[in-house]
This record gives sequence, structure tokens and C-alpha cells, in this order.
Amino acid sequence: MSAEATPADIQAIVTLVESAGGEAFVSRGVSRVVIGLVGDIEQFATLNLEGMAGVREVTRISARYKLVSREHRRERSVVEVRGVPIGPQTVTLIAGPCAVETPEQTLQAAQMARAAGAALMRGGAYKPRTSPYAFQGLGERGLRILAEVRDEIGMPVVTEVVSTEHVDAVAACADMLQIGTRNMQNFPLLQAVGAAGKPVLLKRGMNATIEEWLMAAEYIAQRGNLDIVLCERGIRTFETATRNTLDISAVPVAQRLSHLPVIVDPSHSGGRRELVLPLSRAAIVAGADGVIVDVHPRPEIALCDGPQALVDEDLHELAGAVADLARYMSRDIAVRPELVAG
Amino acid sequence: MSAEATPADIQAIVTLVESAGGEAFVSRGVSRVVIGLVGDIEQFATLNLEGMAGVREVTRISARYKLVSREHRRERSVVEVRGVPIGPQTVTLIAGPCAVETPEQTLQAAQMARAAGAALMRGGAYKPRTSPYAFQGLGERGLRILAEVRDEIGMPVVTEVVSTEHVDAVAACADMLQIGTRNMQNFPLLQAVGAAGKPVLLKRGMNATIEEWLMAAEYIAQRGNLDIVLCERGIRTFETATRNTLDISAVPVAQRLSHLPVIVDPSHSGGRRELVLPLSRAAIVAGADGVIVDVHPRPEIALCDGPQALVDEDLHELAGAVADLARYMSRDIAVRPELVAG
Amino acid sequence: MSAEATPADIQAIVTLVESAGGEAFVSRGVSRVVIGLVGDIEQFATLNLEGMAGVREVTRISARYKLVSREHRRERSVVEVRGVPIGPQTVTLIAGPCAVETPEQTLQAAQMARAAGAALMRGGAYKPRTSPYAFQGLGERGLRILAEVRDEIGMPVVTEVVSTEHVDAVAACADMLQIGTRNMQNFPLLQAVGAAGKPVLLKRGMNATIEEWLMAAEYIAQRGNLDIVLCERGIRTFETATRNTLDISAVPVAQRLSHLPVIVDPSHSGGRRELVLPLSRAAIVAGADGVIVDVHPRPEIALCDGPQALVDEDLHELAGAVADLARYMSRDIAVRPELVAG
Amino acid sequence: MSAEATPADIQAIVTLVESAGGEAFVSRGVSRVVIGLVGDIEQFATLNLEGMAGVREVTRISARYKLVSREHRRERSVVEVRGVPIGPQTVTLIAGPCAVETPEQTLQAAQMARAAGAALMRGGAYKPRTSPYAFQGLGERGLRILAEVRDEIGMPVVTEVVSTEHVDAVAACADMLQIGTRNMQNFPLLQAVGAAGKPVLLKRGMNATIEEWLMAAEYIAQRGNLDIVLCERGIRTFETATRNTLDISAVPVAQRLSHLPVIVDPSHSGGRRELVLPLSRAAIVAGADGVIVDVHPRPEIALCDGPQALVDEDLHELAGAVADLARYMSRDIAVRPELVAG
Repeated sequence: MSAEATPADIQAIVTLVESAGGEAFVSRGVSRVVIGLVGDIEQFATLNLEGMAGVREVTRISARYKLVSREHRRERSVVEVRGVPIGPQTVTLIAGPCAVETPEQTLQAAQMARAAGAALMRGGAYKPRTSPYAFQGLGERGLRILAEVRDEIGMPVVTEVVSTEHVDAVAACADMLQIGTRNMQNFPLLQAVGAAGKPVLLKRGMNATIEEWLMAAEYIAQRGNLDIVLCERGIRTFETATRNTLDISAVPVAQRLSHLPVIVDPSHSGGRRELVLPLSRAAIVAGADGVIVDVHPRPEIALCDGPQALVDEDLHELAGAVADLARYMSRDIAVRPELVAG
Repeated sequence: MSAEATPADIQAIVTLVESAGGEAFVSRGVSRVVIGLVGDIEQFATLNLEGMAGVREVTRISARYKLVSREHRRERSVVEVRGVPIGPQTVTLIAGPCAVETPEQTLQAAQMARAAGAALMRGGAYKPRTSPYAFQGLGERGLRILAEVRDEIGMPVVTEVVSTEHVDAVAACADMLQIGTRNMQNFPLLQAVGAAGKPVLLKRGMNATIEEWLMAAEYIAQRGNLDIVLCERGIRTFETATRNTLDISAVPVAQRLSHLPVIVDPSHSGGRRELVLPLSRAAIVAGADGVIVDVHPRPEIALCDGPQALVDEDLHELAGAVADLARYMSRDIAVRPELVAG
Repeated sequence: MSAEATPADIQAIVTLVESAGGEAFVSRGVSRVVIGLVGDIEQFATLNLEGMAGVREVTRISARYKLVSREHRRERSVVEVRGVPIGPQTVTLIAGPCAVETPEQTLQAAQMARAAGAALMRGGAYKPRTSPYAFQGLGERGLRILAEVRDEIGMPVVTEVVSTEHVDAVAACADMLQIGTRNMQNFPLLQAVGAAGKPVLLKRGMNATIEEWLMAAEYIAQRGNLDIVLCERGIRTFETATRNTLDISAVPVAQRLSHLPVIVDPSHSGGRRELVLPLSRAAIVAGADGVIVDVHPRPEIALCDGPQALVDEDLHELAGAVADLARYMSRDIAVRPELVAG
Repeated sequence: MSAEATPADIQAIVTLVESAGGEAFVSRGVSRVVIGLVGDIEQFATLNLEGMAGVREVTRISARYKLVSREHRRERSVVEVRGVPIGPQTVTLIAGPCAVETPEQTLQAAQMARAAGAALMRGGAYKPRTSPYAFQGLGERGLRILAEVRDEIGMPVVTEVVSTEHVDAVAACADMLQIGTRNMQNFPLLQAVGAAGKPVLLKRGMNATIEEWLMAAEYIAQRGNLDIVLCERGIRTFETATRNTLDISAVPVAQRLSHLPVIVDPSHSGGRRELVLPLSRAAIVAGADGVIVDVHPRPEIALCDGPQALVDEDLHELAGAVADLARYMSRDIAVRPELVAG
């Protein structure tokens, strides 16, 4: 309560809370009074206590997400993408082109990824771009290219979906659906992928708090889909030396609050090729369950984010570091099931 | 170019640019070299110059939006919503409930708005909420309530659309379509409202730069719809004393870069009732073409954002200040056409 | 308490708090427990409750500043600078050069300020500059120039002090001591100006919360000096279109929490001449007790912040707007006492 | 130049630049004109080109720091603190209490640090605190305690200096002078430590860009002291789950721009004990030249930042991880010279 709150103000709160079936505990401080509420939090939320006379602020103690929380499930989860695990026992390397441009470029990038030991392939057919004059992706044609490449090289594919209307088409050809940073709070899209029956890669909004990120995951989980992988990809700050600021702390913090796997995208965080390796190493020893990186056979002609794409030698160096540090973290490198079989 | 750039690096850039039909001017500095490019900017964008050896950074001089820029149209535009103008000669007051809850609450809020002299009515049927456990709006039922209230009191209605699938239904009952802060970069939605044939209220993303905001407007404009009103509603900063930080400078800055009208939402910026009046006054003398505020007959039981909703007396005080300061700015208060007629 | 907190954890807190002479109220929620403490807040602060098992977070209810708070003094204060008031009944215009460069330039700028009706003159002799290669100010020579100009035109002078060693020298020639944004948390300097017996202009740190700003003022107040004027000058955000983001909401928010006067610096907020007028108008109707602006006889050759300096006609237009809007806010324009006398 | 720039505007710039002894290259674009300047950058800085008619923005190509740049010295530097190296061949562990509280607590913390293999000891006698009501450190008494403990256990000491007046006293008892985050732009203090003849640990301002951080180091370097170690300690963002956001990318970025060593403070970044280990691991594989951590024999009674202090077992686990990952990075753990001798 504010310092000016009257006994009548306080009583009014208590009465209102009790009328809503809750209990109110009044604690009188030196210069202020605090009222602790116990009961149905969602019920209290509709009371708009902030609107009552004498109220200074209302703080919610219990979390605003449930299904994705450690309180709901104590053990950290493993999400399987066509048999490829993403979770606490493994480190999963995901690589591919930022955007699908041509069948050749996509196949070459996929071969680079496979040769380096990546378990999953990434590639964008639909590209949300800040400028309407920038390359927007190949759309359905890109999906077909991804499907062909996937079948040819046998790597499960993760690709972004940007509209509820595309969810079925994308789900038909992809093994994992990606929600991009600009769509983290596109709630109808979250609900649609939650109902699509495929694992989801949920990138953190560039201005989202970790709590908001988990609430976005809760939107997906509510539709019955708990196969969600969180992806830290950098947040927006005042620093302009990097494209975004990788919030490395978000990895252990999110893993402590949620049972969902957490991976890192060092390519979009740093926005520069030479930062991908150090940020990937950092991600793994911070406890990330995987990393997702951009690769391109010829970055200098890439239609999207070329400056951050890895070329062949970079990718092999990265894969080596990932393997070494996974071992240090007592984890295995995730591999495609047929390789396990074979 | 970086300090390590070799003459060969520089020549490579010049050759690449010229091969793309452009011209390159090389300026040698004390410790660095700058290369100025002239030609088709979009063409250059596909060259990925950042990827070339020796390149330190690439800065684009001409804007990444065209149709919404002052360069495209020198005079500031007027957007008409069912005859109500929003533009440089007027100050338009938009008021209504944050969310449509019941026919009674919506009608009462609309009557409050009309009585205070608001020209347009706001009200949300679809509410994007951070938590899936918060009130999500009445959806189609809310749209019907809005249509009924609109017909009863004769005020044009602006309401938010959150999904491409709802665009037709919302356009059928609303006079202006609102894109909320979380959807400012939901590009398929921007394109859908661009094609819907109704004026659009485009809220600034809470983490969007002014340039990104104008590029989002460009997505709408590209579909042939230039009836776009920009709405500054506060950005996300480290300051927690207010819900968001109203970027008052964004009003003159956006008006200088774009011919589109710019209004301010003081309710969502400050998040507190007592800030709505001072922030509205500030908005108008900063040059805003209007303000949009939350009102509620009983904020203490509002299902959404009650703490920032104005009640009757607040709204009349606000309307008085708006009228006084509009006069000071040599503007008229925008009124509904039938009132003009009458 | 965290969800994992045991009854023993809870009992340990209660015991510790009671051992410190406080009371602890335990409220059991659905999924969590909250403990409300009552007693000597500073005493509790030394207990490091965050360090105890099972504690999730510790929230302090009462403010961390006292002397500058509205709880300490209900009425808003008036600070007098050589008879010129800064407070709730007036609007005070402060103008002058960003930096003292030459006697001529300083005198001309002061004459511009006086002619336009400014009550106080600003001017920097010590300039904290981000780059060591930028003009650092004239130091003592600048102070002498300020003193001469002050005596010649009879306007009280406010100037910045950047080091405890300079406090006496600056206090000897200035009528008000300015603490710049980079020194807002230079605590020894705050304490030194608190003991210098002159009014203080405390600029908000560009990354300081309003609460931190008030705690900085408390450092000054603790030394017995309550003649403190707060100055909002823009905060650092991701937006790059303006030099800083003017936090206009900070004016009403700070005035509600503290009894100290609050003025605005539109020159350093926007960093561009054409923004000074709209931001100044906004500041005054938001409730600011004054504005402080940069002026320069020839901005194009200014050694510091030329792009934001007003020239003669700008300043007269600004002074006119300030006068009109002060009247609208039922305030008088602050004037120099001799003018009152005359 | 802005789109409205006239040929006369352009000519005016060219003339002004040439009058200042520089050259101006005019490049005409589709919708804009760019003018490239060549000559004495500092000279140009005084021209205030932003103030000229038709100028849209002025971008500086060459860096605003020299002595600390890689262009000035290609090889990364090693800073020696009483024989303990901090640089590219080693990883240096610095540990100690956040604040010196008592001789016993300081000695115990130092013994913990030594036993774990730390090469340097940290400890604060002067504590800049946001609230004037928080523990401010023991001051001179604290310095004496540090000196005694240092002599008893033979570890070089790094401690913070907050005022120019204390520089001599602190330099007399400390082996390395720390500039805290709030003083990164306290330029007189930077100059004073630059002249004190001791190595300096320069923490990054919580709102400072990497470029501003390097310019602050340049202030120290200008006084002839290049024994500067940069310390990334987290920046301020909108995220509240951690005390600050560790900008892990700042390590490789700063090392690329400057030859100075860069270490990381995971304690103040995360603000929580459980984050210190993962953030320290991340720092080392990101290329940090060391880490500095808070330790305390009894964090639950610490007078300052107890929640982030490590206890004995934490510290040993940390030291083990540091050793393992240093080896992975082909570095040695830095040790005290007498140990080398022994």
C-alpha cells in the first residue's frame, strides 16, 4: 500500500479479496503496509487491485506459466526430432543456410552440415525481413527444395513458419517448426504450431524477458504440445558492436525455471562470422543443449545474413570444439538415429 | 574498409560493384579507406559486401522505405476514418475501453468517450496477452458488441486484429484496423491489413527503432494502402517506474521522416492513470496528430489494464486540455462528420 | 520463498528476523510462501536474507531515500539561485553555451540568453568528454570568463563540477553547481557538493532509474543541502534516431516521489536543434519546473555539441512558447530579482 | 547530406573542409549525396559539420582511441601485477571478498582464495553504493586490513579507488587499482590512476558501449600507463532475471579492437551464486584472460552482495573448471611468482 493508504483502504482490499474466496494477511511496516494474498491467483488478477485506493503496487509471487515450469516437471525434458534428441544428456549441432536460395546452394550447405557432424539441418523458406525490399524467401518452392534435400541426405529439417496459414504446409515437409524472434508473441501462431503435432523451436524475442519467453512457450504447451526447444538468439541493447547481445546467462536461468531444453544461436546473436566459434564454445559450457548456426557454400553471395555464415573450414573447427566441450560437460554429441543404427 | 584492407581488397569491391552496374568512389583517409557506392541500392544489398575481405562495415545512405517517406510525398498526409480526419490540421481524440467485456460496459465507455468529445472509439475484441492465463478478449462476440455500440452511438470504431484469419471479419465491423505493438513485425498480418481496404493504426513495436516502424508501415503501403496512422505507445527500457518509456521525441522525428500522421497512446506508455493527462498534454505540444486513451466505467473491475483507464471526470479534464492545447498548436479538434453536418 | 523451500528454511528466516528485533509474517500461497518483515529496514539489509536457503527473492517495500521524498516533506520545494526561484509556481528558463570557449562567445551567448528572458545562465568550464581527444573545456580560465560575464550581465551562473578538487574553486564563482550525467553516481563528488553551500543541479544518469536518481540526490541531502534541482536529460535506449531518449514521464513520476524541483534538458536529450522546441513545450506541460538549453552565437563553429545549440531566433521562439505554456500551467516565468525590484 | 541538400550546401561543406586543410570527395547517389572527408579527424571534429545546412549525419571512420588499439600495437599485451601475468598466454583467477568487513573475514576469504589457487586477491575498502544508507566500506581502515592480509598470505591485492583524493593512499597499499563501473567515465579519476604508476583494472560501465570503454582506457593510457586490464561485468538491459546482462561477446570484440587483456566478473554480472560457475566457464572459452569472483566465509552475513559470493566448495569447483578450460584453450593458470620460484 502507498504511505497515504487509510485503514479503510486496507479494509476494502481485505474485503474484496475475501469476497473472491481468498485470504489477505496484513503486515504493518514502519512507513508502509503490505498485504499478502493467498488463493486463486487468476481470480485475483481479475480484481484489478492496482485500481483500488491506497494501493502502491501489486506483486505476483507464483509464476505465470505452469506446464513448462520445473514445478510442473522436475526433470529436464528431452525433445526428439525424428529420433534426434535435444536435451540434458546431449549437445545437438544444428546447421544449414539462413535462407533457401537454390537447390544447389541448399544441398551444398546441407552436405557441409552433415559432413561436419550436424544432426539436424536448418534452412528458411519464409524469411521475415525488416525491410519489404529485402529478399523474403522462396516460400513454397523453398519448402519443396528443403524436402528434396532432406530426403537426399537424410537429415531432419527445422524451418521457420511465419503465418498460421502456412503451418500445415510447413508441418508437412519439416520435422521441427521454428518460431522466429519477431513472432515470439504472435499468439495465434504459437497456438497453431502447438496444434500441429511437430516439435517446435521457439526463439526468444529480441526484447523479451525470460519470463515472457516461458509464457510464450506456455501458449504452445497449452495446445498439448510439450515438444518445445527454447533458443536464445541475443537481445536488443544499446551496444551496436554486435548485431544483438547474446544473453548467455539466459541458458542456466531458463533451465532452472523450465524443464524445456535450451539451445543457442550464435550466428544471429553476434552477426559476425568470427564470433560464432567463441560464442558457441561459451554456450556449451554455460549448459546449452545445442547450438544452431548458419552455413553457406559462398557467403559473399548469400541473399541473407551472409556476414555471419560459416564456410566449410569454420564449420569443422566449430564441430570439433562442440565435441570437445560436450565431452567436458559429460554429454554426447547427438547423432541421427540411422547413424546410431548403422 | 578495415585498417588491414589491402589494395587488392579495395579493387575487388570496386570490380564487384561495377559488375552490378554501380559506381564506386574510393576515398583514402589517414588510417582508413571509405568507398562510396552509387547505383541500385537493392541490387547492392544482394552483393553482401560485408562478406568481402577487408570490409569493416557497410552503411546504407538512402532510406529502406519509400512510399511512406517525406521524399515520396512532401506534404504530411491526412487519413480519414469514416470522415473523421487524422492529420496536421487537427487533433483527434480516440477513447474507449481497452477490452470489450460486456455490451453494457462497452456502451457506457463509448458514451463517456462521446460525451467528452472523442471523435473515434477504441475497443479490443481480440487481446494479445503475455500470459495465456490472462483474459484473451471476447473475439467475434466482442466484434458484434462493437458493431452494435457503433451503430447506437454513431462513432467510428478502431479495433485490433491479431491474425490474418480475422482480417475480413474485423474489417467488416471496424472502421480502422489496429496493429498492436507485438505484431508490428508480423509481416503477413501487415500485408493482409494492407489489402483490407480500411485505414490502419500501426502501433510502434516496444523494441522497434523509428526506422523499423516506418519499414513496417511500408509493408502495408506496398499493398496499396497509404491510409496509415502511426502510434507511439512507449518503448522498453531499463526504467521500471513506468510500464514503458514514452518516446516523445519519436513524434517530431517520425513526422520529419514520414508524411504519415503520428498519434500517441499515453495509457499504455505510462501504465498509470495519473500519467495519462500530463503525457497527453506533452504529446499534443510535441506535435502529435491525436491521442488514444483507455476509459472504463469501473476501472477497479476492468479485465484488462484497469490501472491506466480513465474514469469520467479524468476524461473530461483530458478533453479540455486537448482542446486548449490544440488551439495553442493552431489546430482544430477533429469531430465526427455528422456533427459537422449538424 | 522458492517452491522448494522447506518448513525449516522458513523457520530459519523467522528466527533470524526476530533475532534482529523484527517481526516476520508468514503467508502460505498455493505454490509458494511469502514472508512479510516488519522492523528496521536497514537492519534487515545487513542480514542478507537472499543468502538464506529457500529464499527466492527479497523485495523492499519502503523507499531507499528519505530526505528527498514526499514522505519526508509533503509540499514540493522551491530552490532559490541568487533569488531566482525554481519550483512549482514558476517555469525557469536556463540558457547558455554548452562550453565556455572565449570571452566573446560566452558574453554573446549570455546576452542572447538574457535578451530572450532566461533567468539563469549555463556554461561549462570543465567538460567531461567521452573521447580524450575531444575539447575538454577551459578549466579555471573558463571559470574566470564565466565570473566576468556573470558580473557584466548580472545573471546567476550554473556550471558543472567534475572533480572533488574543483568544488571550492567552482563554488567560488558559480551560483549553482551542476553534476553531469556521467557523475550522477560519483558519490564522493555528490558529498562534496552537498557540503559546498550552493544549490545543486543534479542531472539524471543516462542509465539511471528514477529511484537511483533520487538516491543520488539523497547523498547530497545527507550533507545538509536540500537545495537540489533534478534534471531529466534523456536516457540511453536502443533508439539511435535521437542522441538520447527523453523520458518525459520522469517529470511527473519524480515529482510524485520527491519534493525536489524537476527541470528538463531538451538539448542533450534530442541532440538536434529542431527537437529543442517541441521537447521544451512537452516538458513544460508535463509539469517541468524549467528547461535548460544550449545556445551559441555560431553553432557551426562550436567546440562542443554545436548541432543542438539554438541561435538567436530559435531562442526567442522558445522563450515565447515557454511563456505561453507557463501561463497555461498557471505558472509565472521566473525572473532575476533585480528585474522584480526594477 | 539530407535529400533536401542544395548544391550550395554541398559546396559550403567542401569549402569548409578544405579551409581546414582537408579534402572532400563528393559521391552522388540516387536520392542522396555522400561526402567523404580525408585529413585531420580531430580538426574536422571542431568544424561541427552537423551544424551545416543540408547535412543529415556525420559518421567518423577512424577510431576515437589510439594507444589502446590493435592498430597502435598489433600483439595482445600482458599486464604484470607484482609478477602475476594477465594476458593471452594465461588465465588469471582473482578472488576475494566484495567488501573488507573485518580482519578475520578478510583473512579467511584470502585464505580461501589462495587455497583454491587464485593468483590475485580482490577486496573493497571503498564501496560505491547506490543507497547512502548501505554499507560504504571501511575506507582507510579497510586499506590497512588489506595490507596486513596481503603481507600475511603473500597475494597481490586489487582494490577499488573511488576518488582522486584517495589515489595515493590506495596506490600505497594496493598492487592494482580498480575503477568501478560507476566511475568508468569519471575522467579526472581515470587520469589520476593513469599517473599513479600501478596497473589498473578498468570495469566496463554498465551502460557503456565497447567503444566508450576503450576511450575510457585511452584516458588512462594518455598519462603514460598502458598497464590496463579491461573487465566486462555485465551491462544494463530490460532483463530483470539477472542483476546485469553479461555481454560475453564483449570479450572477443574488445580483444579484436584493443591489445589490452580482458577479464570477466561473473559475480556482478549474474548477481547470483549459482550463475558464477557457468558464466566463468563461458568467459574462459570465449577467450577471457581471467575471471574475478566474490568469495566470503559466511555469505549469509556479508555486508555487501552476499547473494553472489562463493563459499569454499564453490570456489574449488570453480578453480577446477578454470584449470580444465584454460588447458583446453592452451593457456596456463597464472600463478604468483614465488610459487614459480618455489
